Amino acid sequence: MTTIKNKEQLISNGETRSDRKARALALESLEVALKAADPIQIIKSKLSLKNSTLRVNSYSFNLVKFKNIYVVGGGKATGAMAYALEQVVGKRITKGLVNVPHGTKSKTATIELHEASHPVPDESGVEGTRRMLEIAEQAEKDDLVICLISGGGSSLMPLPRNGISINDKKEITNALLKCGATINEFNTVRKHTSDFKGGWLAKKAYPATILNLILSDVVGDPVDSIASGPTVPDSTTFGDAVKVLEKYKLWDKTPASIQKVLCDGEKGLIPETPKAGDEAFKKVYNVIVGNNRLASLASCKHGKVKGLNTLLLTATLEGEARHVGTVLATIAREIVTSGNPVRKPACIVAGGEMTVTVTGKGKGGRNQEMALAAAMKIGGTDGVVIASLSTDGVDGPTDAAGAVMDGKTLAKASQLRLAPQRFLADNDSYNFFSKLGDLVLTGPTGTNVNDVSVIIVL
Amino acid sequence: MTTIKNKEQLISNGETRSDRKARALALESLEVALKAADPIQIIKSKLSLKNSTLRVNSYSFNLVKFKNIYVVGGGKATGAMAYALEQVVGKRITKGLVNVPHGTKSKTATIELHEASHPVPDESGVEGTRRMLEIAEQAEKDDLVICLISGGGSSLMPLPRNGISINDKKEITNALLKCGATINEFNTVRKHTSDFKGGWLAKKAYPATILNLILSDVVGDPVDSIASGPTVPDSTTFGDAVKVLEKYKLWDKTPASIQKVLCDGEKGLIPETPKAGDEAFKKVYNVIVGNNRLASLASCKHGKVKGLNTLLLTATLEGEARHVGTVLATIAREIVTSGNPVRKPACIVAGGEMTVTVTGKGKGGRNQEMALAAAMKIGGTDGVVIASLSTDGVDGPTDAAGAVMDGKTLAKASQLRLAPQRFLADNDSYNFFSKLGDLVLTGPTGTNVNDVSVIIVL
Repeated sequence: MTTIKNKEQLISNGETRSDRKARALALESLEVALKAADPIQIIKSKLSLKNSTLRVNSYSFNLVKFKNIYVVGGGKATGAMAYALEQVVGKRITKGLVNVPHGTKSKTATIELHEASHPVPDESGVEGTRRMLEIAEQAEKDDLVICLISGGGSSLMPLPRNGISINDKKEITNALLKCGATINEFNTVRKHTSDFKGGWLAKKAYPATILNLILSDVVGDPVDSIASGPTVPDSTTFGDAVKVLEKYKLWDKTPASIQKVLCDGEKGLIPETPKAGDEAFKKVYNVIVGNNRLASLASCKHGKVKGLNTLLLTATLEGEARHVGTVLATIAREIVTSGNPVRKPACIVAGGEMTVTVTGKGKGGRNQEMALAAAMKIGGTDGVVIASLSTDGVDGPTDAAGAVMDGKTLAKASQLRLAPQRFLADNDSYNFFSKLGDLVLTGPTGTNVNDVSVIIVL
Repeated sequence: MTTIKNKEQLISNGETRSDRKARALALESLEVALKAADPIQIIKSKLSLKNSTLRVNSYSFNLVKFKNIYVVGGGKATGAMAYALEQVVGKRITKGLVNVPHGTKSKTATIELHEASHPVPDESGVEGTRRMLEIAEQAEKDDLVICLISGGGSSLMPLPRNGISINDKKEITNALLKCGATINEFNTVRKHTSDFKGGWLAKKAYPATILNLILSDVVGDPVDSIASGPTVPDSTTFGDAVKVLEKYKLWDKTPASIQKVLCDGEKGLIPETPKAGDEAFKKVYNVIVGNNRLASLASCKHGKVKGLNTLLLTATLEGEARHVGTVLATIAREIVTSGNPVRKPACIVAGGEMTVTVTGKGKGGRNQEMALAAAMKIGGTDGVVIASLSTDGVDGPTDAAGAVMDGKTLAKASQLRLAPQRFLADNDSYNFFSKLGDLVLTGPTGTNVNDVSVIIVL
């Protein structure tokens, strides 16, 4: 289980007993969030097998009725998910293959862990995905296909359509990444240039039953977005995909093989992605087993157990990190001043995915920048802490997961002759917190449900 | 009492019954906030006179003990405050003069309303302030000086020190406004070039008792900042004022008369502003009678009366308006999705002062831009409304106080072929909401406790 490696150090950095207590509570809350986002923990706690009945959320499957159980999937956490699934379903699994990033350490018995490249797809990814499709096509009416999906699934499960090469796919991927297209626009193109995404996996596995277990890394858990929805009806068309490329003036630069597929699609020469109402989706169960909300709620619950008045502010937080920091700081100040939105001792949790618009040359991440901006608005208070981390353990291009600040951070920075506004202007939050010894360090966690921020006011 | 002039129109703009109901609740909440920020309402509800005892907050003054009651002050709301004060204290007032903006319509019996210029000070302002100082100096040990302060007080009560002309003062004011100095830096210079601000009024009125009634327009109500604290000890020095001018490279451009005052001050040739511990402050009572928190809490209370689950998120909200809008939208979404931070039907209020960094050429204001950004994050929901306004009735350089959005705003904009992201990129929120008919119109309200935003989820 991932822990905050320098937790004791971070706690002892608190100047007063109250600051240390608030730091301890904030960091413990974040550790609880990490635990709730742990793939093994999630699969083991969400899935249960009793008397041959597999239960997950409100669904139950009588495994006796299934002849074979196949496992497919892909994502950064699917190695661990596959390991845990074997712990639950055990020997009932007939056969399985999931694509995992190079260097995945999980050990499995039946399910093959096929290593592939992330975030830029490779031939090995294509090979693994092709074999998954073979497994899906092999599945019959009385078989169950369990699909494991987590963040990174889109890159780890590439299967370019009709003669598109992996290099062409890489080219358009890079162009779309740079042009400022939204994730939905990106996925519209992805789905129409893939034999796996946009519902095709479900179509190919039909008439088998599909149980899709999703560890969501997309704010709001849109199932058609996560890994580009291989088991979810697609609401977009070939025409939409062409429009996206035209909108960003990419059509002329689009590889000919991709232009051909999209034009053939528009002309009806090749089939559209499966749509809502397609009988292929009648026996598909898409289940979110882990997401930011579950992690954030676990943080809240820990606060409550510790006797704090808790609130989950949001689990779909978005916004520029520094302004989110300002807003969270004003909420912390309000608790101090007026006992709103909750009375002290308080614990407020906000989860989601912040953004940073980089204009400086410094080093930092979303969570560190949020904490820096918050620190600039909370000076001189006692027992007020804001701590924030990226649940994958890697906040921006740094070796820190996030940072922690309290009401003394400004004064300490001043003693060290550090000007917070300069670090913020240069997007240099890492070096600011590094000098204060207030970076939160976890190492890569093997999961991702985005960011969790905790406010503690004692 | 100020009302939202187009309330019925804004309510009927709601597409469904639930949207209309949510709009009505949001707009009523904002009207309640305006009422709670109304100067007449505030003075009448906060001050009471019974058996010759004047009570305000936790203080009480036996008026029988005072020989004279003098009234001084300045600010955009002080005409109305003076009117209401006469309603409470009546004929006990010996004499009074407050500086008010040109065109103030209040009628008073004893207290002279002296018109002056805002936001750029003028000679008339100087004359009125000089006469207030005469009144203060006339006050004896057994007299009470009631000082009325509201937003705009700094500009409306100019009294340049030792031979500084009003033109020199204007020059340095304009330079400081443009250079990006913080309000505290600005006030450091203001206090050291004034015979009235930075505690001087209290010093001159000593040994009279001073009751300072403050309608705060500064986030967090720092009494030494509001109108540059004429009755509050100053913690800054002549040296600090010089440093501010040097920091922004303004010293060489500073008028000679101001340079002389600051240099004389540094050499100890003229006295420093009165400091904490000065006996002049022993009989000074600074009372915040109105502020954003009172207005925001009134909004909340109205929500509660209407059966909603309410939260005051903060009354010291800061941050770039568009990102605040995103954050408030994610909270609204969370209520819809998970019933956090409160269950539906919900009313969440956030008060404070947002900022807009203008980069486009459009027309808009803080509250309108916040609502536009929020609309972009809430699509397709029913009964979800965010409404926001500037309590002075003038949001940015527009004739609107703010705007209202709901879950249908995006779809309506799409029907009208309006691209929200373009309006946002051009800081053109006014024209966006104007086309939708969703601008909130109140006209100037004669008060200012900054911004109030209300989220309603039914």
